[in-house]
Amino acid sequence: MSTEKCLAKGSAAPGPVPSKLIRIYSMRFCPFAERARLVLNAKGIEHETININLKDKPEWFLEKNPLGLVPTLETSAGDVICESDITCEFLDGSYPKNKLLPSCALGKAKQKMMMENFSKVVPYVYKVVLGKNKGEDVSGPEAELKEKFSKLNKDLVNKKTKFFGGDSVTMIDYMMWPWFERLESYGLKSFLDGTPELTKWTELMLEDPSVKAIMHSVDTHKAFNKSYGEGKPDYDYGL
Amino acid sequence: MSTEKCLAKGSAAPGPVPSKLIRIYSMRFCPFAERARLVLNAKGIEHETININLKDKPEWFLEKNPLGLVPTLETSAGDVICESDITCEFLDGSYPKNKLLPSCALGKAKQKMMMENFSKVVPYVYKVVLGKNKGEDVSGPEAELKEKFSKLNKDLVNKKTKFFGGDSVTMIDYMMWPWFERLESYGLKSFLDGTPELTKWTELMLEDPSVKAIMHSVDTHKAFNKSYGEGKPDYDYGL
Repeated sequence: MSTEKCLAKGSAAPGPVPSKLIRIYSMRFCPFAERARLVLNAKGIEHETININLKDKPEWFLEKNPLGLVPTLETSAGDVICESDITCEFLDGSYPKNKLLPSCALGKAKQKMMMENFSKVVPYVYKVVLGKNKGEDVSGPEAELKEKFSKLNKDLVNKKTKFFGGDSVTMIDYMMWPWFERLESYGLKSFLDGTPELTKWTELMLEDPSVKAIMHSVDTHKAFNKSYGEGKPDYDYGL
Repeated sequence: MSTEKCLAKGSAAPGPVPSKLIRIYSMRFCPFAERARLVLNAKGIEHETININLKDKPEWFLEKNPLGLVPTLETSAGDVICESDITCEFLDGSYPKNKLLPSCALGKAKQKMMMENFSKVVPYVYKVVLGKNKGEDVSGPEAELKEKFSKLNKDLVNKKTKFFGGDSVTMIDYMMWPWFERLESYGLKSFLDGTPELTKWTELMLEDPSVKAIMHSVDTHKAFNKSYGEGKPDYDYGL
């Protein structure tokens, strides 16, 4: 089974995952879940998707993953894997087609250091967005976020590559993309003004077939963000 | 070169890492650095150690790793790897002898989920210890820490294994050990009172040859902790 509309508390638990398939518990607008969805798409992995109402989580979902987070993967053997970076690495390791992480330990370590570094960028996006919504002075987090974007730009300049792991898309690009996809809908597109290489990267990412297949339009993100800001996230928006 | 005594600001930068060796920048009492030191020992990896004065870091160290954190690894090719979990996985991937992580993607993912879970335990150790030192009411964090230990105990009961990754020591055990080594020196040994399987695990870990080789005695930890608490960490204590 795949559900487009999200399942909430009280819904019937889905049956076991059919053999040869993997299941992803997701939410259509979650940037962390998008990481795993990009990887599933890029690797051509046959899967089914069950969307979860994150404000009113099904009991059976909390039994599978007490943290209640998406993305969560479930295998046909009943194994449950969560944490977006772990799910993505698991998918890359389990399905040999279209490897997204380098095969050597040093290459993997470099990608992971970039991920770790990017994990410190993400909170600033939210500090700016949520602070603005509350009418707070966000000049501090704004300056920090611009500084972090400028460092990412410098990384690309130093590497002399189109993407963060080389001249083609690799895991780190998919790990970072979901927040850049949402920048315009957050009203933060101007934060890329002084970062030409990073801007070019976002343009190249928009041409990636998996990004094209998975992403939402700016208007769709805006509509979801609005519903989220009003405390009534419309997880099924656009269906 | 290996230095036992820590190097501080103003010290001469060490030369390049000799071929066939790997260098670890460490601090003798840092639990995160200990993770990598346990892995180096367990895998029998020839290495040199340079201890860093973390209160007064050498300029050349900050150039290599602007985050200034230990453990940091440096290869003879000049590659720099940091973040304790990334350094440990890199060592395990680069040196095939005595594999500490499972070879299958699912096994790796399970170890990483355990590490991610344990990373949420560590802050509570410090909340209790630092709060106590400041004379604060730490009953909240104490209850949380006991609850987390009780969950770890339950994990072992459910797994029916001696260690967290099976019946022999694997990566996850070394990732968790440094904080258990320090429990008694923090005055927290009684936190293990209601967790017999976890207690048994600490006893078995004390018999592990790498733990024996790397660990400090309770008295040594106490002496370092005291100097740290007084704002003058004695990184060279006992040398």
